[in-house]
Amino acid sequence: QEIGKNTFGKGIFNTISKDSTWSMKLGLRMQYLTSVGLETDINNQFNFTQNNFKTDTKVRRYRLKFDGFVLSPKVKYKIELGMSNNDVGSASVYTKSGSKLILDAVLKWNFYKNLELWAGQTKLPGNRERVISSANMQLVDRSLLNKEFTLDRDMGFQLRNNHIIGKQLLIREIFAITQGEGRNITTGNVGGQQYTSRIEVLPFGAFISKGDYKGSDLKREPIPKLAIGATYNHNDRASRQRGSQGSIIDLIDDSGSAEDHVFTMTDVNTTFVDFMYKHNGYSAMGEFAYRNADDTTIGTNPVKTGKAYNLATGYLFNNNYEIATRYTQIDYKGIGNTTEQYTLGVSKYIVGHKLKVQTDLSYTTVDSMPEGLQLRLQFEVHF
Amino acid sequence: QEIGKNTFGKGIFNTISKDSTWSMKLGLRMQYLTSVGLETDINNQFNFTQNNFKTDTKVRRYRLKFDGFVLSPKVKYKIELGMSNNDVGSASVYTKSGSKLILDAVLKWNFYKNLELWAGQTKLPGNRERVISSANMQLVDRSLLNKEFTLDRDMGFQLRNNHIIGKQLLIREIFAITQGEGRNITTGNVGGQQYTSRIEVLPFGAFISKGDYKGSDLKREPIPKLAIGATYNHNDRASRQRGSQGSIIDLIDDSGSAEDHVFTMTDVNTTFVDFMYKHNGYSAMGEFAYRNADDTTIGTNPVKTGKAYNLATGYLFNNNYEIATRYTQIDYKGIGNTTEQYTLGVSKYIVGHKLKVQTDLSYTTVDSMPEGLQLRLQFEVHF
Amino acid sequence: QEIGKNTFGKGIFNTISKDSTWSMKLGLRMQYLTSVGLETDINNQFNFTQNNFKTDTKVRRYRLKFDGFVLSPKVKYKIELGMSNNDVGSASVYTKSGSKLILDAVLKWNFYKNLELWAGQTKLPGNRERVISSANMQLVDRSLLNKEFTLDRDMGFQLRNNHIIGKQLLIREIFAITQGEGRNITTGNVGGQQYTSRIEVLPFGAFISKGDYKGSDLKREPIPKLAIGATYNHNDRASRQRGSQGSIIDLIDDSGSAEDHVFTMTDVNTTFVDFMYKHNGYSAMGEFAYRNADDTTIGTNPVKTGKAYNLATGYLFNNNYEIATRYTQIDYKGIGNTTEQYTLGVSKYIVGHKLKVQTDLSYTTVDSMPEGLQLRLQFEVHF
Repeated sequence: QEIGKNTFGKGIFNTISKDSTWSMKLGLRMQYLTSVGLETDINNQFNFTQNNFKTDTKVRRYRLKFDGFVLSPKVKYKIELGMSNNDVGSASVYTKSGSKLILDAVLKWNFYKNLELWAGQTKLPGNRERVISSANMQLVDRSLLNKEFTLDRDMGFQLRNNHIIGKQLLIREIFAITQGEGRNITTGNVGGQQYTSRIEVLPFGAFISKGDYKGSDLKREPIPKLAIGATYNHNDRASRQRGSQGSIIDLIDDSGSAEDHVFTMTDVNTTFVDFMYKHNGYSAMGEFAYRNADDTTIGTNPVKTGKAYNLATGYLFNNNYEIATRYTQIDYKGIGNTTEQYTLGVSKYIVGHKLKVQTDLSYTTVDSMPEGLQLRLQFEVHF
Repeated sequence: QEIGKNTFGKGIFNTISKDSTWSMKLGLRMQYLTSVGLETDINNQFNFTQNNFKTDTKVRRYRLKFDGFVLSPKVKYKIELGMSNNDVGSASVYTKSGSKLILDAVLKWNFYKNLELWAGQTKLPGNRERVISSANMQLVDRSLLNKEFTLDRDMGFQLRNNHIIGKQLLIREIFAITQGEGRNITTGNVGGQQYTSRIEVLPFGAFISKGDYKGSDLKREPIPKLAIGATYNHNDRASRQRGSQGSIIDLIDDSGSAEDHVFTMTDVNTTFVDFMYKHNGYSAMGEFAYRNADDTTIGTNPVKTGKAYNLATGYLFNNNYEIATRYTQIDYKGIGNTTEQYTLGVSKYIVGHKLKVQTDLSYTTVDSMPEGLQLRLQFEVHF
Repeated sequence: QEIGKNTFGKGIFNTISKDSTWSMKLGLRMQYLTSVGLETDINNQFNFTQNNFKTDTKVRRYRLKFDGFVLSPKVKYKIELGMSNNDVGSASVYTKSGSKLILDAVLKWNFYKNLELWAGQTKLPGNRERVISSANMQLVDRSLLNKEFTLDRDMGFQLRNNHIIGKQLLIREIFAITQGEGRNITTGNVGGQQYTSRIEVLPFGAFISKGDYKGSDLKREPIPKLAIGATYNHNDRASRQRGSQGSIIDLIDDSGSAEDHVFTMTDVNTTFVDFMYKHNGYSAMGEFAYRNADDTTIGTNPVKTGKAYNLATGYLFNNNYEIATRYTQIDYKGIGNTTEQYTLGVSKYIVGHKLKVQTDLSYTTVDSMPEGLQLRLQFEVHF
């Protein structure tokens, strides 16, 4: 195929080879974010003086995406690279001190009926908000629930199935066994593997264009659609505060090379229940998250246990402006603080999620801590 | 468009989509540099013994460039990634310890007549030599003036205008408001914003092919062309030795996360006056730079204030060989040394700036310091 | 050329421009590796209990490759970028603390008859196994000989020649003069240059499709083919344990910037003799390596001197399954241990080296140290 055959937003190229032995779509996308924040002063008042504002401007995400099939449409691949300094995460001795460029690098083999085997590094079937691509978000960014509870990405294998019961009841089952240390680790596994199971129920059938994993009802579902999902994750002898993510609980021995470090470990379990509902431009997404651990006290950075709620809802007007709101609550055990965040957002979808401008205003309150206001403005271009 | 339709140097592809909703040019370029240096010995003599030479070989620059428009030719974008270890700059806690791959990531919206709004990360309208792409240089690399005084890149907004007065007097006005911390910062703004204003006057009209921002008169301007520019930059409460660039002046508190560091700050102002003249293969470029600060004494690395001159001139022979010379002088206040550098260069433009071999010899003298000689050889390939 | 004209494994595109001024082939490849290891316990027994296994899963290699010619087919280029955390190597002050993305960046100019001048960064003409691309290996990865003795990549110049004597005796001569510090160094040369000479003799003529530098006899050479090579390398005043590779021998002065560090240095010499034989699906490769140094005692990390053998052999069945074995022995002087490794591998070449699954089992024994078993599984996709 020639380059430039596609309309904007459909890939720089998206081609099947002449002999049908492979295909590739090349995507490129960029998010540019400016934000202004303000905290309450010692009198617990917002003081709107210029010097009190904290501003932040950055290339929030910059991605190169390759996907398609090899040999047969039954063997698909997906590769996504992140290039911005925000994407590459923090280098550590466990990543060869290198920038973590690779986000996804996964093969998906549909080996029997609806059964797919995935091998490689990609997102785990965790909370819905996490699995929704950062290209398809309803507000400027994901919620605090996601920040604190996400299973994020991992390396290993996933088995996926789906089937329809009766006329339209769609069921999906996913099981993953992965290394449990998060993405781009070069020094091998610590402790045991990580096991993730997820089931999804869509009582009224599939959403248009996979809308159960996209923010906002851009397709204006003509009949109501609902998806309910539940995930249970067990990280056997995890080494980090949030299972595969966050700070290391503790190092018992860091005298050797990074491969030989000895970690403090405990089993960590995470549960999610979530839903997505869409109809006629109206959308609602809810999530509940819960994490516990075998030993919640060991280490200088003990596992963060507790629960969180998140509810987002929006309405898309005919002119492709959307107003959306979100409420998030985080309750970490032992920390004694409840965090609450209220967000109000306005988006203009110029070419759907491919070219859009989004802004939102968040008010955050934490027990006996300064309150915060944050205004964000982001635009996205997605070839 | 098919790949390979263009002749060498015009992009790997350069295409407008069939429905004219977007366009993209993909460029790739590489510079390979070898240099040999020698310093005077304790008797202030150059001792041309083999072991005294210091050699250095490297991939100086390796870039991937995407530019074009989205939706309308009035909305342009430019993305440039740097991949060599020289390009990626030094990782720090303010860049998530990651390689700084993104050089430019900017949208340019021509929203009214000649008015353009730029948003994103790109070069500031500072000294002319800096804005000239490193692909289009007359000598092997930029001068010491640029090294010490450049405003480099920043994140934020620029407003650009241009108009013609009378028959051919071209005036350009640029105003930028940016974060003031330099490129790829992930930890937000420190102090105030950075404000940059520039005016350019081209009394004899525009140069052929934007030649006022390209080294050497490759187009052999048939009538004399002149561009004069002046920039004033104000970095409100800057935190680094050269405004947005260089070492941190001082950290008052580095106990928290990088976002919470407290910096020593002072206002920094930089002024540039520069010109470019071209006629019939002859070109001359001159720059004057001046930096001062509100408080020139605070911190362990106080702001570097002072002034600098730079004058380069070259003549392009009919066989596309060029001989060029450059004189640069740096006077930093309080340091008590004047640096002077004389450079003589020879270039062969095989396919203009797209395929060229350049060599230059520099003699550097600093008051009461060893003198230096440096011979450099560089070739560039630019698809 | 259009994208997708080629069959799988022949490049995403591979095109000559319409006016024949340049060409480019774009390749993309990924290796995904899972391994399980076990060491003997204090009773020198393998205890096959689950918790004793050490597992490791990673994107082993992720590469983007550009090659072709500029201006004339006599001026070729090759650029290869590595993107996985395993590829980018360890950042250091000598690489601007940046990820080492660039593997190859080299121009190859065929300036006279069979004489080629190479300039840039690429592999040195060292041991055969190293020069075989990691895309074309017979087993999951290279041997321990390569790990301990490779000359790897360097920056500088290579001169290459080849000629045929008589009917089919093919001789190749290569001479390289390079910086001697390894790839992606930004701080210039330490000590003297590195000199590498190699001669190759192919008594029965060239292999099909450059098979003397590819693992496995995928072309099933109809008549026996043999290649014998010998390399001598001299690293004048080297600063690292393995010449241009490995830990720094010692720093005499690290007080200044990285460019000004003063290193402990000694001359390091490395010799290789190797061969490749192929016939009818059967292949055998052997290597001998020897390293010595002028001073083998200086520094906290003295130069590792000694010798190593490596012999690999395999047979490719008609169904494109291959069974291969390898024996490697490393004898480092002064360390008093001999390392021996036995490897047995099975590969399925689905589309040659472009799409393959490989597994191997290695048994490693080191004098008076625990013995090790390692099972590896790797798949490769190469567009």
